Amino acid sequence: MSELHSYIDENLPRFREELFEFLRIPSVSARSEHHDDMRRCAEWLADKMRAAGLEATIEETGGHPVVLGEWRGAGEAAPTILIYGHYDVQPPEPLELWSSPPFEPEVRDGKIYARGSVDDKGQLYLHLKAIEAHLAVHGKLPVNIVLLIEGEEEVGSENLMPFLEANKERLAADAIVISDTGMVGPGIPTIGTSLRGLVYFEIEVEGPAQDLHSGAYGGAVINPATALAKIIARLHDDDWHAQIPGFYDAVDTPAEVLEGIERVPFDEAAFLAETGAVALGGEAGYSTLERLWTRPTVEINGMISGYTGEGAKTVLPSTALAKVSCRLVPDQDPEVIRELFEAYIEEVKPEGVRVEVRYLHGGQAWRARVEGDLYRAAERALEQAFGKPPVYAGEGGSIPIVPGFEEVLEAPALLMGFGLPGQNAHAPDEWMSVENFEKGTHASAALLSELGSSRE
Amino acid sequence: MSELHSYIDENLPRFREELFEFLRIPSVSARSEHHDDMRRCAEWLADKMRAAGLEATIEETGGHPVVLGEWRGAGEAAPTILIYGHYDVQPPEPLELWSSPPFEPEVRDGKIYARGSVDDKGQLYLHLKAIEAHLAVHGKLPVNIVLLIEGEEEVGSENLMPFLEANKERLAADAIVISDTGMVGPGIPTIGTSLRGLVYFEIEVEGPAQDLHSGAYGGAVINPATALAKIIARLHDDDWHAQIPGFYDAVDTPAEVLEGIERVPFDEAAFLAETGAVALGGEAGYSTLERLWTRPTVEINGMISGYTGEGAKTVLPSTALAKVSCRLVPDQDPEVIRELFEAYIEEVKPEGVRVEVRYLHGGQAWRARVEGDLYRAAERALEQAFGKPPVYAGEGGSIPIVPGFEEVLEAPALLMGFGLPGQNAHAPDEWMSVENFEKGTHASAALLSELGSSRE
Repeated sequence: MSELHSYIDENLPRFREELFEFLRIPSVSARSEHHDDMRRCAEWLADKMRAAGLEATIEETGGHPVVLGEWRGAGEAAPTILIYGHYDVQPPEPLELWSSPPFEPEVRDGKIYARGSVDDKGQLYLHLKAIEAHLAVHGKLPVNIVLLIEGEEEVGSENLMPFLEANKERLAADAIVISDTGMVGPGIPTIGTSLRGLVYFEIEVEGPAQDLHSGAYGGAVINPATALAKIIARLHDDDWHAQIPGFYDAVDTPAEVLEGIERVPFDEAAFLAETGAVALGGEAGYSTLERLWTRPTVEINGMISGYTGEGAKTVLPSTALAKVSCRLVPDQDPEVIRELFEAYIEEVKPEGVRVEVRYLHGGQAWRARVEGDLYRAAERALEQAFGKPPVYAGEGGSIPIVPGFEEVLEAPALLMGFGLPGQNAHAPDEWMSVENFEKGTHASAALLSELGSSRE
Repeated sequence: MSELHSYIDENLPRFREELFEFLRIPSVSARSEHHDDMRRCAEWLADKMRAAGLEATIEETGGHPVVLGEWRGAGEAAPTILIYGHYDVQPPEPLELWSSPPFEPEVRDGKIYARGSVDDKGQLYLHLKAIEAHLAVHGKLPVNIVLLIEGEEEVGSENLMPFLEANKERLAADAIVISDTGMVGPGIPTIGTSLRGLVYFEIEVEGPAQDLHSGAYGGAVINPATALAKIIARLHDDDWHAQIPGFYDAVDTPAEVLEGIERVPFDEAAFLAETGAVALGGEAGYSTLERLWTRPTVEINGMISGYTGEGAKTVLPSTALAKVSCRLVPDQDPEVIRELFEAYIEEVKPEGVRVEVRYLHGGQAWRARVEGDLYRAAERALEQAFGKPPVYAGEGGSIPIVPGFEEVLEAPALLMGFGLPGQNAHAPDEWMSVENFEKGTHASAALLSELGSSRE
């Protein structure tokens, strides 16, 4: 084993301790009460970048700041690699379903349990540690590095595109590397070939000015909870095909994507077991992987109305709220889908209530252009770290900024993720495999070597 | 004015102070954390009964106790009147919508604002004060009295029927008087001719074992919130006619009830204004009063699933819960409706999720037999207190124990309520009119006189 990789192995316990410090900061971007935690988290990260040998700055945006770490010592002939990640995390609720507190990381059965462990603090931090290893062992990096870590991925990355546009020259790169996705299964290194896009809405139905007695008024006033349910029920037919006119118009999955799905070693029984549902199910006529990687969805993320406490309370609720998001596939335009969605709700809403649709944010889907030095280097690096070549797989989730990166920086993006099925990202008991944190660090270090040598 | 009514007028300020004490006790029967408050409330009430001159006992049941106040000094020839009320109240949530705290009574614009003011502490307490007036002024009552105040009306009165059965001899009465309903409008004394029944359910839909990432799983796992909405949407057609097979089979409104509705001075515009809704609405083909008094309903009382906090969280929820209740009309059997409801949910539930229907409680509807001394006495007493004769009106709400009282005690019930439209029973800012508390006390005292003299 090279000195580089020995350094990583020797320092893994410290790397993990540092990650734990990172995970203890409750950097929940969606919640205003965590504003100070977000700032503290950005500063902590900048300090760690400096300690590793990068020049680090905290860059203000209209929202939570971006943390930038740079190293330009490889010279103009060497490629510049931009590594992207995010230090913000999803809200931890419902807290009572966590086996250990979300911001007190704990290792159980080879898994690091904490909010943000795999999404995305663990995955971004392994790159910083790979950079540290290169600088510690060789005093230099094989490539120029821009480590760009934002704080608004979980709330739609609204300020990142303007930041990229405004800093286009400074951020210019030959490749964009992102570790915010997963592997198909344990021990199977994976390169991501697609991401779904997203549009996120709230639908609010307003009935009476306040909750009413369901006896004194029930039957003579439209119930906003029932009205909301009627709206939601019209989003899909009984085959779970979305009913929004025009929703599927732009969907056009290339034949090679469908062929690629056939080659993925996918364990459907294990996937079902992860979910804990009684059965898998979804749009009729498609396989599970097709549903996840090639079909858009309309999903209820949350719903609330009236009395939901213990026992019986006979109210006719004043309002009803649903959080609704669509995952989009490549070629669907979020703006077009937004308009179709809003028009459809307007069309199907019942009389006698006020219905408001609020658009929260959206992002484009993405499909990889699997070609060139970047993908070859990644294949070799992953094989080195995991002992077998990677598979190519789609991804059901969204990283709305990926298409934006490619467009603004005019460079290809690579998704090299180290999550695993069942990791509970966005859910209680989120975890990242200790093994993947370690092998991911080796893979990142190897990727930098490969990218440096491929251009020499 | 007689000495009796002068006594009431002179003591009204103290009566109101006492009522405020009563209202300050948060006797929420649905919540286990208020267990001690329930006991304290029962004891407070028993003390006040004793102070008025009744023999008071706290009677244990399987749940919250019944408070009994008795006076048997009128002799066997005089009638015995059972006055029923309840000292428990609805949960006060949502707290943030109250203009003043729910358990800190406050008078504004001639209204006593507090949880339980009109439902039912204010209405039961005026009877106790009328009894006190008789005993203070005359040293005796014109009738024998049983004042029966339960603590579980808001959670279905489950233990009251067994209590009535077990104490049938002791509770034997010639008439049952209940003030837990409302008047058609300010200054219009009202006798209630019907009550709706109730069945209350929870529908729980379980999907994945925990909230899932809506990208990583969305499209391949049935969403329980969407599934619940589909179930709820099938409860009514687009004309708001309930779709549960057999639901309306027993509904048969007598012609005189429909004719009576025509005579009720009902201000539909004022009713709409009370609700604050954009429009009234309900089952096609029926007027507002028909919908409230002669038609059963299927109402969503609450609904919760997934993430409902600030901002966007992209989860596929693990579970979804709805609280659903039906208001029933006379001749509908709650047990039959329960079976029809459960069978229908079983029939319409989507595949791929677990659906559980939990029956919480139920009660029969009621229709008054408007005849005999009781109703004549009430007409005269209400005219004395309000200066005009009462109207007869239906009631959309439920007092599930009324049919049970009539059956077990073999005596007619009288609904003589002093609530008013817009009183926010079961909602934030519940209030009772100060004027009605006062005139109600006079009416109750007059009713006892009338009932005593009518049998002499």
